Amino acid sequence: MTLVEDMLDTYPAGLGNVDRKKLADCIRECYACAQACTACADACLSEPDVASLTKCIRTNLDCADVCFATGQVLSRHTGYDANLTRAMLEACAMACKSCGDMCEEHSAMLHCSKCAMECRNCERACRELLKSLG
Amino acid sequence: MTLVEDMLDTYPAGLGNVDRKKLADCIRECYACAQACTACADACLSEPDVASLTKCIRTNLDCADVCFATGQVLSRHTGYDANLTRAMLEACAMACKSCGDMCEEHSAMLHCSKCAMECRNCERACRELLKSLG
Amino acid sequence: MTLVEDMLDTYPAGLGNVDRKKLADCIRECYACAQACTACADACLSEPDVASLTKCIRTNLDCADVCFATGQVLSRHTGYDANLTRAMLEACAMACKSCGDMCEEHSAMLHCSKCAMECRNCERACRELLKSLG
Amino acid sequence: MTLVEDMLDTYPAGLGNVDRKKLADCIRECYACAQACTACADACLSEPDVASLTKCIRTNLDCADVCFATGQVLSRHTGYDANLTRAMLEACAMACKSCGDMCEEHSAMLHCSKCAMECRNCERACRELLKSLG
Repeated sequence: MTLVEDMLDTYPAGLGNVDRKKLADCIRECYACAQACTACADACLSEPDVASLTKCIRTNLDCADVCFATGQVLSRHTGYDANLTRAMLEACAMACKSCGDMCEEHSAMLHCSKCAMECRNCERACRELLKSLG
Repeated sequence: MTLVEDMLDTYPAGLGNVDRKKLADCIRECYACAQACTACADACLSEPDVASLTKCIRTNLDCADVCFATGQVLSRHTGYDANLTRAMLEACAMACKSCGDMCEEHSAMLHCSKCAMECRNCERACRELLKSLG
Repeated sequence: MTLVEDMLDTYPAGLGNVDRKKLADCIRECYACAQACTACADACLSEPDVASLTKCIRTNLDCADVCFATGQVLSRHTGYDANLTRAMLEACAMACKSCGDMCEEHSAMLHCSKCAMECRNCERACRELLKSLG
Repeated sequence: MTLVEDMLDTYPAGLGNVDRKKLADCIRECYACAQACTACADACLSEPDVASLTKCIRTNLDCADVCFATGQVLSRHTGYDANLTRAMLEACAMACKSCGDMCEEHSAMLHCSKCAMECRNCERACRELLKSLG
C-alpha cells in the first residue's frame, strides 16, 4: 500500500506538523495487523488444540477491532484531534503488545509466529508515531 | 436491547467483579452511539450548510469507529484484559466528549441535538464503568 | 434504541418511499445482532467443549461483521443507492440465516439460544425491508 | 502485505479448491480500498467545494464499510460458507463500482483519482475471485 502515501500526498489541506512517513507507516500497520489478527484468530480455531488457544483468539479479535478503529482515525485529517489520536495510539500499542506476547507464546504455530511479528511491527509504529506527536 | 443483559447472563464462565448493570449499560450505549454518530454524519452531509459542518462530520465518524470498537471489546469476557478495557473506555469517553461538544454547538439542527444527547449518555456510561473498575 | 427513529425523523432531507418503520426495525436489529453474535462467539470460546463449536464461532464472527456493515449502510440516506442496499440486505439475511441455524443446533447452550433468536429477528427484518423496497 | 499470503500459507487446515493467488489479491484490495475510501471521504470534507461532493462522501463511506466486512469474511476459512462469500463479493464489487464511478467524475481532485483507481482494482479482484469460485 504505497496508496496510503498517495492519499496523504493528495489531501487538499495541510497535515500540520505530523511526521508523514511515521503516519503512513502506522496507518499501513494498523490495517495489516487487523487483517493478520482476524486471520490468526480463525487459524487458531482450526488448530486441533483449540481449547488451549481461547485466550489467544480473544486477544486476536480485540486487537483486530482496535487496530482497525485506529487506522480509521489516523486516516482522517480534517479537524484533527491530537488527544483522541494519542488515546487510540496508546490503546492500539497496548492491544498489539498483548496480542504479540500471546502469539509469541504459541510461535510453534506458524500463523501465531507471523501474527506476533506483525503485532510487534504495529506496536512499534504506534509508539514511533506517538513519540513524534510530542 | 435487553439482549445485552441476556448475553451477559448466559455467559458460561464467571464475569469477575464487574458491575454487571454498568457493563450492560455501557455496551448498549456504545452500539447506540455508533449508530447515532453514523446517522448524524450523514444528516450533516444533507444540510444546506454542509461546508460549516465538516469538522462535526469528522468527529462523528471517529466517534462511531471508536464506540463500535469499544462495544466489541466490552462484549468479550474470555481472557479479560483490564488495561485494554480501561484504555478503550478512556478513548471512547474522549471521543464522545468531543462529539457531544461539537454537536451541541449545532443543536439547532435536531439530528445534532439528538446525537449530542446520545454522546453524553455514552460518555457517562464509559466513565461510570471506568470508575467501577477501580 | 428509539434513537434510531429520532435520527430518521430529524434527517434534513427526504427519505424517499422507504417504509420508515421497517427501516428503523432493520437498523436496530443489525446493531443488536452484531453485538449478540460478538458476545456469542466469545461465550462459545468459554465453553468446555469449544472444539465442537469452531464452525459456530466463525459463523458468529462473519454475521457480526456483515450485520454491522449493513447497519452502517442503512443508517445513511444521502445519495441512496438501492442496489447496494438490496445486495447488503441479501447478504445480511443470508449470514443471519446461517448463524441462526448453527446456533439453534446448540440451543442447549443458552447464549446460542438467545443468539439464534436474535439472528431470526434480524433475518426477518432484512427480508421485510427488502420486500418493501420492491 | 505479503503478510496476507503468509497467513494463508500457515493456515493449519485445507483451504479447499480456492485460487490462493486470487484470494490473497482480493483480501489485500479489500483492506486497501477500505483505507483509501476512508481517506478520500475525509479529503472530500476538506475541499472548498464540499457541497458538491456529499454523494461522493457517502459512497466512499459505504464502500469502506463493505470492503472491510468483505476482507474480514475472506480472511476466515474455518467452516467456509460459499454462499455468503459470493454474496459479499457481489456487494463489494457493486460498492466499488459505484464509488469508482463517482470518484472518476471528480478525478481532477487527485485523491478521488487515486481512490477511483483503487476501487477499480478492488472491484476487479472481487470479480476475479467470484469467477474462480464458479
